[in-house]
Amino acid sequence: MDQKEAQVELERATEAARGGITAIERALLGKLIEVCNRPAFDVVLWTGETFSGVPGVQAPSRILIRDRGALVRMLANPELYTGDDYADGRVDIDGDLVGVLEAIYRGLDSLPERSMKARFLRWINRPRPNTLEGSRRNIHAHYDIGNAFYRFWLDREAMQYTCAYFRTPDLSIEQAQIAKLDHVARKVQLAAGDVVYEAGCGWGGLARHFVKRHGAAKVRAFNISEEQVAYAREEAARQGLSDRIEYVLDDYRNMSGACDVFVSVGMLEHVGVDNYPTLGGVIDRVLKPHGRGLIHSIGRNRPMPMNAWIEKRIFPGAYPATIAQMMRIFEPAGLSVLDIENLRLHYADTLQHWLDRFDENVDAIRARYDERFVRMWRLYLAGSKAAFQVGALQLFQIAFARGNDNSVPRTREHLYREATDGSL
Amino acid sequence: MDQKEAQVELERATEAARGGITAIERALLGKLIEVCNRPAFDVVLWTGETFSGVPGVQAPSRILIRDRGALVRMLANPELYTGDDYADGRVDIDGDLVGVLEAIYRGLDSLPERSMKARFLRWINRPRPNTLEGSRRNIHAHYDIGNAFYRFWLDREAMQYTCAYFRTPDLSIEQAQIAKLDHVARKVQLAAGDVVYEAGCGWGGLARHFVKRHGAAKVRAFNISEEQVAYAREEAARQGLSDRIEYVLDDYRNMSGACDVFVSVGMLEHVGVDNYPTLGGVIDRVLKPHGRGLIHSIGRNRPMPMNAWIEKRIFPGAYPATIAQMMRIFEPAGLSVLDIENLRLHYADTLQHWLDRFDENVDAIRARYDERFVRMWRLYLAGSKAAFQVGALQLFQIAFARGNDNSVPRTREHLYREATDGSL
Repeated sequence: MDQKEAQVELERATEAARGGITAIERALLGKLIEVCNRPAFDVVLWTGETFSGVPGVQAPSRILIRDRGALVRMLANPELYTGDDYADGRVDIDGDLVGVLEAIYRGLDSLPERSMKARFLRWINRPRPNTLEGSRRNIHAHYDIGNAFYRFWLDREAMQYTCAYFRTPDLSIEQAQIAKLDHVARKVQLAAGDVVYEAGCGWGGLARHFVKRHGAAKVRAFNISEEQVAYAREEAARQGLSDRIEYVLDDYRNMSGACDVFVSVGMLEHVGVDNYPTLGGVIDRVLKPHGRGLIHSIGRNRPMPMNAWIEKRIFPGAYPATIAQMMRIFEPAGLSVLDIENLRLHYADTLQHWLDRFDENVDAIRARYDERFVRMWRLYLAGSKAAFQVGALQLFQIAFARGNDNSVPRTREHLYREATDGSL
Repeated sequence: MDQKEAQVELERATEAARGGITAIERALLGKLIEVCNRPAFDVVLWTGETFSGVPGVQAPSRILIRDRGALVRMLANPELYTGDDYADGRVDIDGDLVGVLEAIYRGLDSLPERSMKARFLRWINRPRPNTLEGSRRNIHAHYDIGNAFYRFWLDREAMQYTCAYFRTPDLSIEQAQIAKLDHVARKVQLAAGDVVYEAGCGWGGLARHFVKRHGAAKVRAFNISEEQVAYAREEAARQGLSDRIEYVLDDYRNMSGACDVFVSVGMLEHVGVDNYPTLGGVIDRVLKPHGRGLIHSIGRNRPMPMNAWIEKRIFPGAYPATIAQMMRIFEPAGLSVLDIENLRLHYADTLQHWLDRFDENVDAIRARYDERFVRMWRLYLAGSKAAFQVGALQLFQIAFARGNDNSVPRTREHLYREATDGSL
């Protein structure tokens, strides 16, 4: 041991004595920053010690680790635990929350899949049975949040908890959600008198818009969430649409009868790849010979599990599939894919609108829930925006018809004609 | 054996004696018609005996089997041998050639995959090593046909041997091929000054159009066919474009350098699914950070081998892949699919134009080649039209960019704006 090494060792011992970190912790944290590939943030410990994202450069944002427990959990499984610790305030981000999360995603995304760094990351994020312990603590909280919470930050027009369509960049979130519904309506060539089946209807905004604006004769909208269906029914009654909309509190797999249009916006994420052929079978069972369909879903460019924290704390069982995986819906059912559009950056914009509105209402949300809840949801919204922004998540709209249907539109010009009916 | 059975047996023996068919042949032929699921044609033997597609109804078209050999081969492997026998005139079609082929495709397509009928069909069409014997007799003939043959029936503007784009139904084949090239140019946001790499350039029409109409600074167009490259170079020189187009007589896998736009129209059918990741690797190697790409290819709704006769006689090694299979190009390379459009019915229209022009020039073609050649090509063009018409084949255009490129267009409106530069 030369003089310099001896001095370093002395400093370490001193730090550890005053609650600093051990050599192994230091090495692992250094490695964790390294796999982020020169991120635009520094990491600052409760001791004041700073680990630079890019050595010699002061980063615009800082991740603050406020105690040893948070560090140990970050080193054990950052993807899962650090979300919780952020919610608890034991980890904080000083600066641009979305920017920091983007830097992490972007760094991880640039790793070659078989590199040592990627392997290190998979190793520390590996699933462990015991991580499930206590994982339910927020699930009930999430499901019991109720409709009121989402009204604080979703659009006030159609209550859409899915990607909007910014036909032009200046649209409000209300306009962009209506534009999304109009875009879907055009893609399925919705016509007056059509019978529409919807799988997973959320708060029912699509059904109301399809009836009000596009003259659908009947929409049967399926959802297994009692609270959402109650809201949807109330809203349809209030708007005098109850005779043309049936909100069905049931699983989409129990659909029967026949429809001109099958649509599902934001349900596929919860279906599970193994059930895709079943979904295709349901579509095949109910779609009329010249029926049109559309599935709108978050997706991936390559197969990857959902972020562990989001999967455990926000969306249990959620999985964003690749286009190849989504084809398992259509192939066995003999359905023909007509059009796939990737609206990734529209979801980043949608999330920014949600974040802005969340922040506008943050005092009311905090008063009704608590600070931990506020931090958890901001982290989730910011992390989701970051994921779309860097390309870790995609948004696919897939339009389809029966394989032998020659009445399908020849071009997509009709999607882009100037609307004469005031639709967006 | 009761009286009726005895009479039937007597009739069969009588027929066999005058060169008719045996009971087993009769049963197999009946089965073959049955798997076509009540097709709109009758089958008439050289004996005059007629087998109805739909019992009790006279069909609009008839398949004529002119001798026992053709029947035996049809019963052994209809997909492979009957094409040859049609070319030889031992099988003929009286009525609507495309219509008969459509009826066959449509019937087969309606069979449940695990049904006894489908299994029967797979069994008689099963690959047998000895069917390869002599399979090369037409391959050389096909490759030695030369450029002159294709000039008899392809468009005269850009010599495109791929699906056209009928932006409006009234376009001529020349206009629709130019419209296709413009559609591709818009999808890759081709801009003046761009460097374009093309994998599989045919007779080089895309490169010339991209330079002439869209101001590409440079197109490097790869093709391994000497004859096509010679034609392309000559045509570029004639039009004074040689300084901006480099036709490279080499495999696309040897591409190097960097491009703004990567495009491949009608090559993927010959690449082979196992080589898709290699193709993706080539794209990843040459595409600039904000580069745009498009692959245009025949495809399928579900995995299925190429029609055996076409694969052996017309396009050795060709395979139309599903969307899921095509994703093997993009997933490993971290590319992001932005847009998939299915232009199936445009290919049916394209083939009709080619058939019409083929028929206009049929005397000249017959004089230069022979009747067998004419029949083979008409069967191939008609069969291809039928396959697109009934949905057995698809045509996919897949636009893509790098996974982290946020400069991609937000909407597809730019594809459908009225052109101000006279492009289609």
